[in-house]
Amino acid sequence: MLKFQRITSTGKARRGVLETAHGTVQTPAFMPVGTVGTVKAMTPESVRSTGAEIILGNTYHLMLRPTAERVASFGGLHRFMNWPGPILTDSGGFQVMSLSGLRKITEEGVTFNSHIDGARHMLSPERSMEIQNLLDADITMAFDECVKYPAEKKVVQKSMERSMRWAKRSKEAFVDRPGYGLFGIVQGGMFEDLRMKSIRALTDIGFDGYAIGGLAVGEGQEMMFSVLDYTACALPDDKPRYLMGVGRPSDIVGSVARGVDMFDCVMPSRSGRTGQAFTSHGVLNMRNACHIDDHRPLDAECGCPACQNYTRGYIHHLFRSGEILGSMLLTGHNIWFYQNLMRQIRTALDEDRFDAFHNDFMNRYAHDRKM
Amino acid sequence: MLKFQRITSTGKARRGVLETAHGTVQTPAFMPVGTVGTVKAMTPESVRSTGAEIILGNTYHLMLRPTAERVASFGGLHRFMNWPGPILTDSGGFQVMSLSGLRKITEEGVTFNSHIDGARHMLSPERSMEIQNLLDADITMAFDECVKYPAEKKVVQKSMERSMRWAKRSKEAFVDRPGYGLFGIVQGGMFEDLRMKSIRALTDIGFDGYAIGGLAVGEGQEMMFSVLDYTACALPDDKPRYLMGVGRPSDIVGSVARGVDMFDCVMPSRSGRTGQAFTSHGVLNMRNACHIDDHRPLDAECGCPACQNYTRGYIHHLFRSGEILGSMLLTGHNIWFYQNLMRQIRTALDEDRFDAFHNDFMNRYAHDRKM
Repeated sequence: MLKFQRITSTGKARRGVLETAHGTVQTPAFMPVGTVGTVKAMTPESVRSTGAEIILGNTYHLMLRPTAERVASFGGLHRFMNWPGPILTDSGGFQVMSLSGLRKITEEGVTFNSHIDGARHMLSPERSMEIQNLLDADITMAFDECVKYPAEKKVVQKSMERSMRWAKRSKEAFVDRPGYGLFGIVQGGMFEDLRMKSIRALTDIGFDGYAIGGLAVGEGQEMMFSVLDYTACALPDDKPRYLMGVGRPSDIVGSVARGVDMFDCVMPSRSGRTGQAFTSHGVLNMRNACHIDDHRPLDAECGCPACQNYTRGYIHHLFRSGEILGSMLLTGHNIWFYQNLMRQIRTALDEDRFDAFHNDFMNRYAHDRKM
Repeated sequence: MLKFQRITSTGKARRGVLETAHGTVQTPAFMPVGTVGTVKAMTPESVRSTGAEIILGNTYHLMLRPTAERVASFGGLHRFMNWPGPILTDSGGFQVMSLSGLRKITEEGVTFNSHIDGARHMLSPERSMEIQNLLDADITMAFDECVKYPAEKKVVQKSMERSMRWAKRSKEAFVDRPGYGLFGIVQGGMFEDLRMKSIRALTDIGFDGYAIGGLAVGEGQEMMFSVLDYTACALPDDKPRYLMGVGRPSDIVGSVARGVDMFDCVMPSRSGRTGQAFTSHGVLNMRNACHIDDHRPLDAECGCPACQNYTRGYIHHLFRSGEILGSMLLTGHNIWFYQNLMRQIRTALDEDRFDAFHNDFMNRYAHDRKM
């Protein structure tokens, strides 16, 4: 049972507050990804100082190492990793498809080999609920199947229908308690009728929130937006909507305009470790020699510690020298950039000028849409 | 010109305060090593929060990348790396011997190939002084030659005598200014008469402080202490004494007891990155499976952020998963452990109970002496 309050809206864009057992989340919200119990190259205090209120943990990774039972013995994921705020965990469904070895999917669930040591494991709706409960996730995701893109409509339909049966089993297995919630995941690929069928199946079951899965899988921003155009607004108005694995800054702004409340993506953290800096004027590759004598901060408009204290030349030096501090500073900057974007979105909604913000952003970030 | 004030002493052990252009250093002091302009895996704020007041930078690394001239264009090393406190730089002499490719030593200096790109470079007393001036080092080290251990007395003598000629040229090339100082380096291997000759040569020239070089090169703690027994107390009483590249906790306590004021070593930071934790009960290897279910902090007696917020089990998990946060937390802990040791040493001196502290420490840390 999660409390979600709508504060205001502009067109389809929504401003809200989500209350969980571990604290409140202002939406639209971006969740940094803390795969194995750490947002890579950052302390939880630094993550919090960027403005992040909720992070994501990965069921697939954590069930393999250190195991959900072990995390539970340490008092749950919040205490294990020293993140006192809300945590959403994915169901493991997506990553078991993309990361594990030999796998076999049946109606019961998925058996697969660990990418770490090859050991045989099983995930089913019931086991995924159990794991997420052991992790003490504030928001649990229903266990679903993900198909590769592109796929034939028949394949997408069969997979979506199985995911809906798994969603029902997830709901039945989920242990409801105050401040904890379960989200269903809409599937159906790029097919409007399948998306609508999926939404009807999920709303019949009833969830605390609704995620949109099967996007950001290579279909491109235009296609993604066209699916969102009919999908997001067909979801219940009074529940949070979460677009999984998205995305670039322009993806986020465009998706908020289409009615999405929550996002997660490895992009800011992964880019930070490889030397990419998000700035208000576009993306910089800090490994490029052009930065070697640059005395400017990464982004003069940014208030993050990296921009307050270091030059582009120094950060370039760190990456050229293979220094860990480079990853630390740039990850922090990128997460800050994303959280600042969410702050700007929320403020624009609060001040009833989101349309202007949206148009201005899409013009300034035209390059980002082609990334 | 550096101001060094002796506060108190117990036997040969000394308690002092060193004043530099960028701030004050309480001695005995341990300097974390910031090789290429970063104490690896730590922000400068975290380094400072451990209690560290002065750090070390490496001339050899910085002259190759990003180059001393470039650091100067960024306002010096303090501003480049955002460390506002005092910095000591080594002369490059030791590392050109241990790291560079093909090298040729003449009376003029050393020509060598960069370990990064093979480019040809030159270091001489004059060039080393120029580089350290460009870096804006509060404490500059005289340029010296280091011989391998063990070496025949004749070889050690010839090398020491050259180092003394280079020390004179270093003094002549050093640009003296208030708050900045130049340290001479005593050489002479494990030979008492050579050490005494070296000290006489250096004190004839006159320096702001005296370093003891050529120790911690594989001779063992007993031999090192026996050299310190006659070397440290033969140095001028009113100047700081710096034992280069030392060492383990028991090396430091035993050297303070023999009259040393300053230390540097990569051990706490390098160990942190490889999973070794210094604790009040000895060294832990955090990669060992024995820690997997351990809910205790690294060291119950430690006040560092890692010990306040994380279990051994979590830190083990980070190292097993190859997570950067593991290196961050453990490096911070180890530097904290070293700074806490220095605080305990200084307090024991202040409270006139250093002999008891020394004896107690050497008994408790007997294992460390055999590491």
